[in-house]
This record gives sequence, structure tokens and C-alpha cells, in this order.
Amino acid sequence: MNIAILLYEKMTALDAIGPYEVLSRLPDANVVFTAERAGLVTTDTGFLRLDAQRSLADVTDVDLLLVPGGPGDRAVRDNPTVLEWIRRVNESTRYTTSVCTGSLILGAAGLLKGLRATSHWTQLEVLREYGAEPTGERVVEQGKIVTAAGVSAGIDMALRLVSTLVGDEFAQGLQLGIEYDPQPPFDTGAPEKAPAPIVALVRAAMTY
Amino acid sequence: MNIAILLYEKMTALDAIGPYEVLSRLPDANVVFTAERAGLVTTDTGFLRLDAQRSLADVTDVDLLLVPGGPGDRAVRDNPTVLEWIRRVNESTRYTTSVCTGSLILGAAGLLKGLRATSHWTQLEVLREYGAEPTGERVVEQGKIVTAAGVSAGIDMALRLVSTLVGDEFAQGLQLGIEYDPQPPFDTGAPEKAPAPIVALVRAAMTY
Repeated sequence: MNIAILLYEKMTALDAIGPYEVLSRLPDANVVFTAERAGLVTTDTGFLRLDAQRSLADVTDVDLLLVPGGPGDRAVRDNPTVLEWIRRVNESTRYTTSVCTGSLILGAAGLLKGLRATSHWTQLEVLREYGAEPTGERVVEQGKIVTAAGVSAGIDMALRLVSTLVGDEFAQGLQLGIEYDPQPPFDTGAPEKAPAPIVALVRAAMTY
Repeated sequence: MNIAILLYEKMTALDAIGPYEVLSRLPDANVVFTAERAGLVTTDTGFLRLDAQRSLADVTDVDLLLVPGGPGDRAVRDNPTVLEWIRRVNESTRYTTSVCTGSLILGAAGLLKGLRATSHWTQLEVLREYGAEPTGERVVEQGKIVTAAGVSAGIDMALRLVSTLVGDEFAQGLQLGIEYDPQPPFDTGAPEKAPAPIVALVRAAMTY
């Protein structure tokens, strides 16, 4: 199982690392972090750098592609080299997946036409520009194209993929292994649950 | 707010990146990833390398220390340079925190004597070697020493720290920003919830 995780400048680290922590523990997983150019990629906060072991040109055989989101998604959506690579590897993937605004990148690559898809809740309407039908669901499976909502949703998506790929018991074991028994201190993780002033503040901060 | 995140070989990436994604968005956050030697650190799967911008020797002024866990914790518990650095920065931190078996490292540094603490559920009893009282709670606050359970628990811990440091509304905004509205496909994230055979399998796989 060759898993490729796309890295790019100003991506959000947890979008990639959440699902990576689950998917990398699949039997026979072989994970490659890849970027347009191999080397260090600086994430959106500016504090953390992740290492892309290989350039996109050197990654051709991908069973599962994961595209994270983050404020850098806009530049990627304008980058024909990356979009062409996504289209090319998608031809033979078993799953092509995204987290957060990674779905906008899949959209820009032309992979979401006529499909239901999700994204970070502040960016859902942008999906329409790419012919997709936005939905606020946390994980949306449309055949082999699977999109997850904002940032932390990638963990839930990865566990669902593992249950499909290997089975429920293996996925349950991984969930227990990462002790994923969430106990957030508040119940404000979705716009329909958070107080309106907080929704407005976050929307203002994250619309770019 | 100077936040230092300890990196070391064979650490578990999500232990660090989960809370980082929350804490790095604190007002005036200044995050440094640090390791015994600056440079790339390979995480436990062997697939992902994180960049430690600075060596421990160059990190002296820490308001919040975060120590992740992972199978590499054992080597760190035997490393007097790292333990001495932890003791030294702990003298002036506002919070000294751990995720997963990072608590065993805090214990080896002598910081948990007489305190209640948590860790990955498979390693709780090891805490007793360091004079701590294990508990299966997800986040344990003992004054400025805060320990979180396995891997994904760091996200919950970070949101709690933010609510204390800044306020509930800010923490709720961050939770909404990372769309942390968990919907795991199973309810097997804690040993008391998972089927016994799965608990046994994971315990066998993770006892080292």
C-alpha cells in the first residue's frame, strides 16, 4: 500500500499528520511525504517544517493519495505542475483523499465534478467553483474520492478508510492504539454547535 | 508565550502535532521544536521527519514545555542531557506538559513524584517507577504539571490549557477553527470501551 502525502508551503500540519498516524500503521504501508521539490516545507504557522523525502516527479505509483489543506491551498490551486501530478496519480489510486481545503485542490485538479464533497466549513461554497456539491458532513465518500472536513476530521476519515481496507477490528485496534477517545472540553467544533459570535469571529479570521 | 516542543528519534508525531496545532495559535505564541541536536528527527514509523530548529542547549526560556511520547521514550529516559534540560527549563515554565509516554520522560526527570499522572493506557503502571500515581483520566492537571493520555489526547489537553490561559471563548474558537467535532467510526478508543480481544492485541503490540 503506497501512500503519498502531499506537502506544500503554508499547509496545516495536523491535516496531514492526523490521518498519517492512522494510515501509516496499515499492514504493508509505505508512506512517502512528497512536494513539488524534495526538502523542507514550512507549515502555515511558520514554526514547523516537515520533510518531503521525494519530489512529485519521483512519486508515480500511489495507492492512496492524501491532500491536506491550509492557507497555502490557493497557491497550489494555481500550480499546474502539482495539479497535473494529482491528475496523473489519481488515474491508478485506490483512494484519492483530502482533508480540509485539500478538497479545493482536488477540485482545481478537476476531480470533484458532479461529486458531493466537504471542506473546512468556512470554505464549503468554494467547492461549487469546481462543480462539486458541498455538504457539511464530516467525511464524504464518493467512490474512491473521499473528502474530510476541517483539520481534525482527517483522523475520522483515516479510521473509516482502514475499516474498509482491512476491516473493523483492525481499525478499532488502531483507534485504541492512538487512544482516540475524544473528550474535547467544549462542544463547539462545528458551526451549528458553536455560539454565533464565535462562528462569526472564526469565519472572519479564516476567510482568505 | 514561548512554547518548546521536544523532538526525539522514534517519537510519535501526532503526540506533538495535535497540541501544536492548537497551542501555536495562542496569542503571541512563539513555538520552537527542539531536540538534543538541531536538525531532522525521524518519527516512530520511519516515514516522517520533523525539523528541530534548535538544539536543547539553545532553548532556555520556556513558558510551556510539551514532551511527546512514542517508542523512543525509553532512550530519552536514559539520556541525562535531555532529562537535565527538562529539569532546568521546568524551573521557570508556566506549564510543563506531556502526551502519551512523554509522561514517563517527565517521570524520569523526577517531575512526577507524588503526583497523579496519565500516559498511554498500556504504560500506566510504569509511572509508579517514578513515584507517580497512575490514573486513566484523559488529561490530568497537577498544578503546572499536565499529562495527557495516549497520542490523540494531546488535542484535548491543549484546548484545556488554552481555556485556562486565555479563556473559554478563545478555546472554543480554536476548536471550531480546527473543526474538532470528533466522529470516530467506533467507540473503541479506550481500553474499557474496546472489545477484550482487541485490547489484548493492542497491549501485546505496544508493550515494549
